[in-house]
Amino acid sequence: MSAPDLSHGDFTLPGEAGYEQLTLRLAQKWGADTIRDSDGTQLSPEIVQSGYAIYSTLCLVRSVQPWARVNRGKLQQNFLMSFPVVADKAATTVTLLAGYYTEQFAVNFGDSPKKWWQVFDRTTGKEVAKTKWSVNPKKGTVTITGTVPGHQYTVNFLAFRLWEEISMYNHLTNNWGDREHLAAVDPMQPETQKVLLAFLEKWLADHPATKVVRFTSMFYNFSWFWGADHAKLRDIYSDWGDYEMTVSPRALTLFEKEYGYRLTSEDFVNGGLYNSTHNAPSRRYRDYMDFIHGFVIEFGRKCIDLVHRHRKLAYVFYDDHWIGVEPSSPRFKEFGFDGLIKCVFNAFEVRLCAHSTGAKTRELRLHPYLFPTGLKGEPTFKAGGNPTLDAKNFWIDARRGLVRAPIDRIGLGGYLSLVEPFPDFQDYIEGLAQEFRLLKSFHAGGRPWVAPFKVAVLTAWGDLRAWTCSGHFTPGVALYDVLESLAGLALDVTFISFDDLVKNGVPRGVKAVINCGRAGSAWSGGHYWDDPRVEAVLTQFAKKGGGVVGIGEPSARPRAGQCFKLAQVFGLDRDTGDRVANGKYKYAVAPSHFITADVTAPLDLGKDVDGIYVHGPATSVLADRAGSPRLATHAFGQGRAVYLSGFKFTFENTRLLHRALHWAASQEAAWGAWQSANVKTEATCFPKVGKLVVINNAGTDETTTVTLGDRMTTRTVTLPAHGIQILDV
Amino acid sequence: MSAPDLSHGDFTLPGEAGYEQLTLRLAQKWGADTIRDSDGTQLSPEIVQSGYAIYSTLCLVRSVQPWARVNRGKLQQNFLMSFPVVADKAATTVTLLAGYYTEQFAVNFGDSPKKWWQVFDRTTGKEVAKTKWSVNPKKGTVTITGTVPGHQYTVNFLAFRLWEEISMYNHLTNNWGDREHLAAVDPMQPETQKVLLAFLEKWLADHPATKVVRFTSMFYNFSWFWGADHAKLRDIYSDWGDYEMTVSPRALTLFEKEYGYRLTSEDFVNGGLYNSTHNAPSRRYRDYMDFIHGFVIEFGRKCIDLVHRHRKLAYVFYDDHWIGVEPSSPRFKEFGFDGLIKCVFNAFEVRLCAHSTGAKTRELRLHPYLFPTGLKGEPTFKAGGNPTLDAKNFWIDARRGLVRAPIDRIGLGGYLSLVEPFPDFQDYIEGLAQEFRLLKSFHAGGRPWVAPFKVAVLTAWGDLRAWTCSGHFTPGVALYDVLESLAGLALDVTFISFDDLVKNGVPRGVKAVINCGRAGSAWSGGHYWDDPRVEAVLTQFAKKGGGVVGIGEPSARPRAGQCFKLAQVFGLDRDTGDRVANGKYKYAVAPSHFITADVTAPLDLGKDVDGIYVHGPATSVLADRAGSPRLATHAFGQGRAVYLSGFKFTFENTRLLHRALHWAASQEAAWGAWQSANVKTEATCFPKVGKLVVINNAGTDETTTVTLGDRMTTRTVTLPAHGIQILDV
Repeated sequence: MSAPDLSHGDFTLPGEAGYEQLTLRLAQKWGADTIRDSDGTQLSPEIVQSGYAIYSTLCLVRSVQPWARVNRGKLQQNFLMSFPVVADKAATTVTLLAGYYTEQFAVNFGDSPKKWWQVFDRTTGKEVAKTKWSVNPKKGTVTITGTVPGHQYTVNFLAFRLWEEISMYNHLTNNWGDREHLAAVDPMQPETQKVLLAFLEKWLADHPATKVVRFTSMFYNFSWFWGADHAKLRDIYSDWGDYEMTVSPRALTLFEKEYGYRLTSEDFVNGGLYNSTHNAPSRRYRDYMDFIHGFVIEFGRKCIDLVHRHRKLAYVFYDDHWIGVEPSSPRFKEFGFDGLIKCVFNAFEVRLCAHSTGAKTRELRLHPYLFPTGLKGEPTFKAGGNPTLDAKNFWIDARRGLVRAPIDRIGLGGYLSLVEPFPDFQDYIEGLAQEFRLLKSFHAGGRPWVAPFKVAVLTAWGDLRAWTCSGHFTPGVALYDVLESLAGLALDVTFISFDDLVKNGVPRGVKAVINCGRAGSAWSGGHYWDDPRVEAVLTQFAKKGGGVVGIGEPSARPRAGQCFKLAQVFGLDRDTGDRVANGKYKYAVAPSHFITADVTAPLDLGKDVDGIYVHGPATSVLADRAGSPRLATHAFGQGRAVYLSGFKFTFENTRLLHRALHWAASQEAAWGAWQSANVKTEATCFPKVGKLVVINNAGTDETTTVTLGDRMTTRTVTLPAHGIQILDV
Repeated sequence: MSAPDLSHGDFTLPGEAGYEQLTLRLAQKWGADTIRDSDGTQLSPEIVQSGYAIYSTLCLVRSVQPWARVNRGKLQQNFLMSFPVVADKAATTVTLLAGYYTEQFAVNFGDSPKKWWQVFDRTTGKEVAKTKWSVNPKKGTVTITGTVPGHQYTVNFLAFRLWEEISMYNHLTNNWGDREHLAAVDPMQPETQKVLLAFLEKWLADHPATKVVRFTSMFYNFSWFWGADHAKLRDIYSDWGDYEMTVSPRALTLFEKEYGYRLTSEDFVNGGLYNSTHNAPSRRYRDYMDFIHGFVIEFGRKCIDLVHRHRKLAYVFYDDHWIGVEPSSPRFKEFGFDGLIKCVFNAFEVRLCAHSTGAKTRELRLHPYLFPTGLKGEPTFKAGGNPTLDAKNFWIDARRGLVRAPIDRIGLGGYLSLVEPFPDFQDYIEGLAQEFRLLKSFHAGGRPWVAPFKVAVLTAWGDLRAWTCSGHFTPGVALYDVLESLAGLALDVTFISFDDLVKNGVPRGVKAVINCGRAGSAWSGGHYWDDPRVEAVLTQFAKKGGGVVGIGEPSARPRAGQCFKLAQVFGLDRDTGDRVANGKYKYAVAPSHFITADVTAPLDLGKDVDGIYVHGPATSVLADRAGSPRLATHAFGQGRAVYLSGFKFTFENTRLLHRALHWAASQEAAWGAWQSANVKTEATCFPKVGKLVVINNAGTDETTTVTLGDRMTTRTVTLPAHGIQILDV
C-alpha cells in the first residue's frame, strides 16, 4: 500500500470570529479540512470564505425564540414529582415547584390537570381520587382533602421548561449575565413543526457557504431537572438516556392511539426515580421510547430532507438533544443522516460512535473542549490548567478504542482563541491528528485481529445501549469500567438484551456472556430475570460448554433463599442479610490460576459487593476479603463461570478480565497471540496491512514484550509516555 | 438495713462423682447452697447426702432411649429442603439427604409424602404437581418428571432426627466415641406422652434427694441442621428461636383443626431460609408458634404438676429444648415453673432472664462452662487457657446487666474436676459470688435509678424477643450490640412489636423509639411496615415531640423512590443503588453536638450501611464516610430523629447511644445524673438503700468522676481492673 498523507484531512477545527488569523494558521497546522462554529462562537465571512468546508451547528428547537416567547403553551414539558409533604391534618397543601429551579420550570396548569396529573399517598402507595384534590394556579399549589396525618403525599404534575438545559448550563457556567435564556419548543405540536420547517428552509437559504448542517441534536434533550439551590442540589435528576423531557398531553394522546393503552404520569415519575437508564425499564416505558423514536425519525427525516434538498449534508451530534435519535437502533438509518459526531472522554465512547450504522461518517469531538474549565469546573485553558497534558491523557484513553474500531474524522470544539497562549498544545494536536490518520489508514486495510470467539454483554437494553450505560463515565457503575476495559481488547464484543436471549438464545459464536451490575439495575437485568427462560437458556448454555462471567450482583433477582438466578452456575450466591441463620461453606483461597497469572498487587475492584458465599468444594475462590469471595471460578457441566465482586477500570483489571473471558470460554489455548506483556501497554495487529500497533496507555515510559500471532515469537518495544510504535509483521 | 451475709447462699455448684472432696470443699468456699449434676456428670450418694439442696437435670425427650429405639416413627422430625438440582433432561432425580448429616437425619417416607411434601421449580417459583413426582424410599430419592432443562428443583420433605442435637454436639465435641447416640421422642404423640409421664413418675420416685428438677428444657430444641461435611459446613441451618424442629404430620393436623387453615411444607422451608428469628416472621408462622406454645404449656404443665406432686420444685433451663417455652410470653406463668435458669455470656442475657415473669426464681449459669474448651473450641480448662481471666471478663460483661436488674441466683455448670489445678479460679469465684450477693441485696431494697423517660425498642417480635435477637451474641446483627449497650444503662427499656404499635400506639411514657436492623429483618420490621398505620403512628409521635432513633436500615421497606418508610422523619434515606441519576444534597459535617460530646476517636459503628443521602438543610450530619452520613440528626415537627448507619458495642458507642436517646427524647436536661465520666466505667444509684455502685468494665485500672443525682456534686473513684466500688450516697 502507498503511504497515506498524514498531514491533512478528516479534521474539524472550531473557528472563531475575531481570531481569523489564528483560525487559518491552526487549520493549516492541524491539517483541518473543515471549520465549524460552536455554542457561543460564530464564524466571520473571512473564515467562511477561506475555502474550508463549513460545519454550522444548528439547534432547531432553540432556533425560534421570538415565536417561543409568545407561544409558551408550546414549549417542551415533562412530569415532575413534588417533594413529599407529610400530612398533619385532614387537608394538606403542596407547593408544586418547592425545591425546583423556577427559572427552568413553570407549572402547566393549562392542560387539564385532572386529566394528566396524579396525586399519591406514598405511605399507602395508592393514588388519591381526583375528586379529593384541587389546584390553585395563582399560588402554584395543590390542596388535598381527606389526608391522613402522618402519611406522605406527592403530586405528579406537568411543567413547562422555560429555559433549555444546555443554554442554561452554558449560561450559568460562563456567567453570561443577561444574555437571553433560550427556550425549547416542542415539535410534537403540528403548528410548531411548521414554524421549525419554515425556519430551517430560510436558514438553509441564508447559509450558502455551509456544507454540513450539524444538528445539536434533534429535538429532545436528555433529562436534567435542576434544584432551587444550585450550590447544594443542582441536579435533582439527570439521566443521559431518559425520555422524560419528551412528554406532553399530545404525545400521550398519540401514544394511546397507536399502542392502545394509556400511560399515566406515574409511568414517568416512578416514585421520583423517573426512568433512569440505570434501572431495568418497564415494558410500558419501552413502548413509549419506541413511540418517541418513531416520531423523532418521522419529523427528523423531514428536516434532513430539507437539508439535502439544499445540497448540504446533515450530521447529528450524539449528545444533548439526542433523545429519540438512538444511533444504535436499527431504525437510525431511516433518518438519512450523513454523519454522526460523538464527544468522547473514554475508549468506550469511541466504540459507541463506531458501533452506529446508518450514517456514513463517524466523527469524534475530542477533549479537552476549548473552554476555560472542564466539566467539573477544573481549570483547562486558564491559569492552573495544563491543556497539553489533558489532551495527552484524553488521547491515550480514546486511542485504545480508536485502535480497535474505525472512526472517520476527529475534531475539537469551543473557543479557539483560548489555545493561543499554549503553543505546546498547538504542536501536540498536530501530532495527534497525524496519529489518528495513521490508525485510520490501518483500519482502511481491514479489521484488526480479535480472539477466535465472541463475547456477549447481557443487559436489559442490549444493543440499544451498546458501549455505554447512560452518558459519560459514572464512577460506581461497574459496567462502565468493564466497557472501558473491553473497548481496547482484541475481542469481538456483542450486546444482547434479555428479549434477544429469550427469542434467539445465545448468539452463534459467543463463548462468554458477561452480566454485570447491581441488583435491579438495567445492567444486571432486574425484573427481566422473572422470565424463567432467561435462567434456563443461560444455564443450558453453560452446561453445554459456554462461559458466564458475572460481576457484582449478576442475575440478581432476590427471593427467599436465593439472590442470583444463576447461583447454581456461579457456584455461589449473595447473602443480602437474611441468611444469618444459614451456615456458610468454609473455602480455602486457591493459590494460583490462569486468570490471576498477571496479578501483582492486591485486587482493587472498586466499590464491590460483600456477603458472597460459595455452595461447596466445586467453587474455587481466587481472592476474598473478610470471608466474602471477590473472585471465584466454577466448573458447571461442560462450561465455566467466573465471578467478580465488582470491577474497576485499571490496567491490571483489564488484563484480569481479558484472561477471565478466555478462561470462561475455555479458550486458554487462544491466549497470548498479539499480546503485550506489560499491562500498561496494548498491542493490536492489523493482519491485512501487516502492521502491529503498540500503544503506551500510561504517562510514563514503558518497555514491553509483545508476543506475535504464532504465540511464540516475541518483540521487545520501548515506548515514551503516551507513546505509540508501529511494527511491521 | 442490716449487713447481708455475703459468704453464703444463692449459688449452684456442679458436683462430680469421684471428686467428692473437691465438690464439698468448693461448695463451702463458694458458699453454695445447691449442688447439681451436668450433661456428662453424675452425683454420687456421698454428694447427694451431704446436706446441700440437689438440682437434678432432666431432659425428658431424651430420657426414654430403649423405647425410642423401637419407636423410630415417633422420633421428632422436621421439614428439610433438598439442595437444588439443575435439570438437564425431562426427568430429574433428587437425592434428598445429599449434603445433610445422615447420622442426624433419616427421611420420613412413612407419613404420606404426597400429602406433606412439596416439590418446587425454584426457577419459576411454582410447585410441581404431585402427579409429576415419585419417591424411592430405598434409594432415598425423588424423581420428578416433566422437568425443564436449566430449571432448579428442590424437594421439601419430612426427616426424622435420629440423634438429638445437644447429645450430638457434646458427643462430637468431647469425642465420646461409641457412647450411645440419644434420640429425642416427640411428645406431640399421645402414646409418647404416656411413656414420658410414666418415666417421669418413676424418676421422681427414684430421686428422693432431688429438691429441684431442672428441665433441659422442655421438648423441642432450637433448630440445628447439620451438614455432611462437619469441617466445611457443619451448620447448614441454626437458629435459637425457630420452631422448625417441632413439626410433624400430627402437629400440622392439629394446627389445621384449631386455626382453620392448613400450613404447607413451604411455610417452614421458605426457600431454604426456614423461619429464622432474624427475618420478619409471616403471620402463618406466628400462628404456628402460638399453637406449639400452647401445646408445650399444656403437656409441660402435666409434667410440672407431677414434679410438684412429689414435693419437688421445677426449674427450666432457658436454652436447648426451650422452643415453645417462651419465658417472655404472658402465658409462661401457666407452666407453673418455680425457677428459670439462663446461661449468660453478655449483659443483655442477664436482662433477658430478669425480664421473664411467671417463675419465682431467676438463676444465671455463668461462664466459663467447666469444659476443656469454649464454644468456639478455644482452650479454657486446659493447657493454653486462662480460666480466671475468662471468668473476670465474662463477669464484667454480665455484671453490667446484674447491676440494672435483679437476679436471684447464680451458678456454674460442667466438670468440677477441671477447676482443681486452678486455685486462682477457685479464689476468684469465691469473690464473685460475694459481689453477686451484695448487688442482690441492693436490688432487694428497691430498683435502681433510671432516667425520667422510657425507651421503646420496636421490632417485629416485640416483647416476645425482648433483650435478645436469636440466642447468644452474633456479630453483624446490630441490635445485639444495641441491646448490650442498653443492658447496662440507667434507662427504662420496653420492647414493642408493630402489632402493639398499631393496636395501642407508642406506650405512655416512651419518649424515644429505637428501630434498628437491616432491611427485611425482624429487627427493622420488613413487611410489617406495609401497614400504613405503623408509619403514621410513628410520624405523628415524632411530629408531636417524640424521638426516633434509627440504626442501620430503620423502617426499611424499599419501593421505587424510597427505602426508609420514616425517611421524612429522619430527614434522610438510603440509596439502594437505583438512584444513580438522582442528585444528592451536599451537606457539611456539623462541628459539634450534644450527642458526640464524649466522642474522642473516629466512629466505629461496625459493619454499617452506606448510600445514605440527606433530604436538605434540616438534616445535620455529625459524621460521615465517603459522602455517606453515619450519624445525623433531624428536627421533625416538635420531635427529633437520630440516625446511625450501624452500631457496635463499645464503651464509647454506649455513651453515644445514651446521649442520642436523651437528645431524641428532648431530655438533655435530664442528662448527667448518676453518670460516670469515664466511658469504661458505669454508675448505678440504688436510692432506697443509699448506695452508688461504680463498676469498671475494663481490664485496666480506671479513674472516673461520678456526678450525683443533683447533677452538680461529683465524686472521684479509682477502680482496679474488673473492679467495683460502693459509695454511700
